[in-house]
Amino acid sequence: MNYKLVFKTIGKLLQVEAALLVFPLIFSLFYKEKISYSFLIPIAILLLVSRGLSFLKPKETKFYAKDGFATVGISWIIFSIFGALPFILSNTLPNFFDAFFEAASGFTTTGSTVITDIEIVPKSIQLWRSLTNWVGGMGILVFIIAIIPQTNSRSIYLLKAESTGMKVGKLTSKITLSARILYLIYIGLTLLLLILLSLKIPFFDSLNYALSSAGTGGFAIHNTSIAYYSSAYVEIVIAIFITIFGINFNIFYLIIIGNIKQALKSEELRYYLLILFGATILIALNTLSIYTNFTSALRFSYFQSASIMTTTGFSSVDFNTWSNFSKWILIILMVIGGSAGSTAGGIKVSRIMIYFKTIIKEIKHTINPNHISIITFEEKKIEESTSKGVFAYLSAYLFILVIAALLISIDGHDIVTNFTASLSSISNIGPGLSMVGPLGNYSIFSNFSKIILSIVMLTGRLELFPILILFSPSLYKNN
Amino acid sequence: MNYKLVFKTIGKLLQVEAALLVFPLIFSLFYKEKISYSFLIPIAILLLVSRGLSFLKPKETKFYAKDGFATVGISWIIFSIFGALPFILSNTLPNFFDAFFEAASGFTTTGSTVITDIEIVPKSIQLWRSLTNWVGGMGILVFIIAIIPQTNSRSIYLLKAESTGMKVGKLTSKITLSARILYLIYIGLTLLLLILLSLKIPFFDSLNYALSSAGTGGFAIHNTSIAYYSSAYVEIVIAIFITIFGINFNIFYLIIIGNIKQALKSEELRYYLLILFGATILIALNTLSIYTNFTSALRFSYFQSASIMTTTGFSSVDFNTWSNFSKWILIILMVIGGSAGSTAGGIKVSRIMIYFKTIIKEIKHTINPNHISIITFEEKKIEESTSKGVFAYLSAYLFILVIAALLISIDGHDIVTNFTASLSSISNIGPGLSMVGPLGNYSIFSNFSKIILSIVMLTGRLELFPILILFSPSLYKNN
Repeated sequence: MNYKLVFKTIGKLLQVEAALLVFPLIFSLFYKEKISYSFLIPIAILLLVSRGLSFLKPKETKFYAKDGFATVGISWIIFSIFGALPFILSNTLPNFFDAFFEAASGFTTTGSTVITDIEIVPKSIQLWRSLTNWVGGMGILVFIIAIIPQTNSRSIYLLKAESTGMKVGKLTSKITLSARILYLIYIGLTLLLLILLSLKIPFFDSLNYALSSAGTGGFAIHNTSIAYYSSAYVEIVIAIFITIFGINFNIFYLIIIGNIKQALKSEELRYYLLILFGATILIALNTLSIYTNFTSALRFSYFQSASIMTTTGFSSVDFNTWSNFSKWILIILMVIGGSAGSTAGGIKVSRIMIYFKTIIKEIKHTINPNHISIITFEEKKIEESTSKGVFAYLSAYLFILVIAALLISIDGHDIVTNFTASLSSISNIGPGLSMVGPLGNYSIFSNFSKIILSIVMLTGRLELFPILILFSPSLYKNN
Repeated sequence: MNYKLVFKTIGKLLQVEAALLVFPLIFSLFYKEKISYSFLIPIAILLLVSRGLSFLKPKETKFYAKDGFATVGISWIIFSIFGALPFILSNTLPNFFDAFFEAASGFTTTGSTVITDIEIVPKSIQLWRSLTNWVGGMGILVFIIAIIPQTNSRSIYLLKAESTGMKVGKLTSKITLSARILYLIYIGLTLLLLILLSLKIPFFDSLNYALSSAGTGGFAIHNTSIAYYSSAYVEIVIAIFITIFGINFNIFYLIIIGNIKQALKSEELRYYLLILFGATILIALNTLSIYTNFTSALRFSYFQSASIMTTTGFSSVDFNTWSNFSKWILIILMVIGGSAGSTAGGIKVSRIMIYFKTIIKEIKHTINPNHISIITFEEKKIEESTSKGVFAYLSAYLFILVIAALLISIDGHDIVTNFTASLSSISNIGPGLSMVGPLGNYSIFSNFSKIILSIVMLTGRLELFPILILFSPSLYKNN
């Protein structure tokens, strides 16, 4: 990789993190929390480092795909390191590993926390957490491309490396315009959610939950998450919005430009909703005995299914008390995740569909070897290269999932805790089952496990390869 | 499919099951157990049904691949149904679902049992169980092809559909000869094991353990499995032999014809041993605190690693009491399984290697998109069609694993029980963790779950597709 060019680019990106830190800084001043330095110091360091890196003079200025992947992988790690500073400086999480975990969990929209009592944490710190969820949801680099016009090849590589889904949806031919449209839709939906929540709960709460819902992150400002409000209104509004944020944003663009017919044709959208509502009904029927009536069961089951499938991770009940059948449905939703091109994590509905279609094709091929069938998705033929990437993804996902579970098992926690913590991290969900259930907390893990899970979260959010390539020696060769 | 031809073929196969039942019949007479009718009745029914099916007159006598797959899938189900009769008639397992589970578990070499006290079961029934393990290991149809010379295309399709591994190793160009060589090696190794065991334990015990070890089945004639003997000699002999039975039989053929150099070149062999001994050492180090010294820890850890990786499923200790780290290693071994072309189950080392090579290739491709790399295995290029099948396999394996775990979770057992019971069944291992651990038993499951797990065992043993195609409506179309 081209070190100088990569770090020069990262240098520019760091200015944006400095700008983001201004928001919680304003809140800390507004609430007179006396921890303004927790944001001022990181801002100062970020600007200084950024300035320093700007002096780099790359000999070769052409940006290659690998530089794009490396920039994205490294910048997310650096963002998490600097994003951890406010937690350390404000004494919320004095241990670096805790703070790094929390920041990585925020940016990757996982929403797992190591803070044991979030309600006593300064409001500005709470807001910083929610803000990391929001920025991380749509993507740090998409955000940067949206605000800083760039005309070179750099943007497309960065966008490709950061996007959630198989391909960057080609909204328009202009990359900056695409990024801006995405962010406008994102901001619009976030504002709408903010307004709807404000009708029922305090503005500060609404702001936090709007930000972390939009990013399908799931950071809460109450120890009991959304269950704190015991409000059907809040639950239903949030459930509907996270369902929306789990949909491919290209579909909203199609709706905006009036092409509703095309939008509704989306195969992924239909299967996404089918799986979500199928899971909701199965869990509602299965938990009927716990709740007073079917409407209550449906309310809790829809909220939880949406929260897990969109990888948000809020909880309105303690699903650790549900039957194992319902827990298995949640585990399956954890693996599937939301739609490509949304703010959700997981393997993504589109990939799951390609796996299924391939199985069916192989069965047909077994029955009739002469029959040649083509796998299509969204009315387009799936190319060989796409198909290979999709399967390599599945293998790598499973490999990381299992190895991470093995490594964190050294801490001695039970198998369900290790497995669901690892699964929850790679799919960027937040809660798992057993000790990392809705009432649990990731503070039970050792520093070693926290680092492992932080890397897994980053790997999952960036769809594996931008982080995986950092482990490949050939990246560091000069050529 | 060509119903008449398929069932005519199955009719012939049933004679072989009748012949197999003669062995336990002899034992029941020898031990004067007064349950000879338990074998005589099934033999009579089998011969009658076989005779009936022989009157079928297929219009089209050409055998297609789909007929081969269907014949294998259906015949294994029918073999398990008739194989269940001795358990029912002898009153060992009066419930059909129990008996079918036990027979399917036997033929598929899973070795899971629903018999709560195997030690009080008649010896002839014990032998029938061990014999199903032995025949199922190398394959019912391979056995039939070995003994009944067939020159038509039928044999190759049957062998292809039943073989464990990606491809039928081409030992010789003659299919019957290949099947015979395989069985000769198999019989030779089984006899050698029988002799070695007889030096230490009674002949009847040796026979049973030799048969179930050779098939990497794992049916035991003691409630505590191999732990019953508390003998380092027995454990080490069995561990070495199951390690051998988990190796691709083509390698033994190469050794026999003197091509040792070529045999040792095998990539799969090297990785198989590397994974097995890696796991052994990790578990030995991790369980050092439980056992008196490193030698003991190594003995127990090698036995258990070999037993799980080769999908035999014997236990010499209660690994349910091991740390979660060691349990995770066992879970990983359960997924990997043995070598292709061996009697072992699981995904198989060769497929795991292709997944890995594909991930590495994709990472390299990400770093350098212009670089075209080819995936090779055993010095041969992996063809597109093979690669697709291998990935469809992974998807289907995971899908069946998760859906089965979900379905059996209706019984209400814990997540680890459901997950490992499902995993153990699809990989044809036997024990899992928690309630299906070495001291546990599958009798805890409902009839519904037993049927699900029986289907999963059959699906796993036949490498998914021969059973999966039975669920495809297009198989039943006449064409």
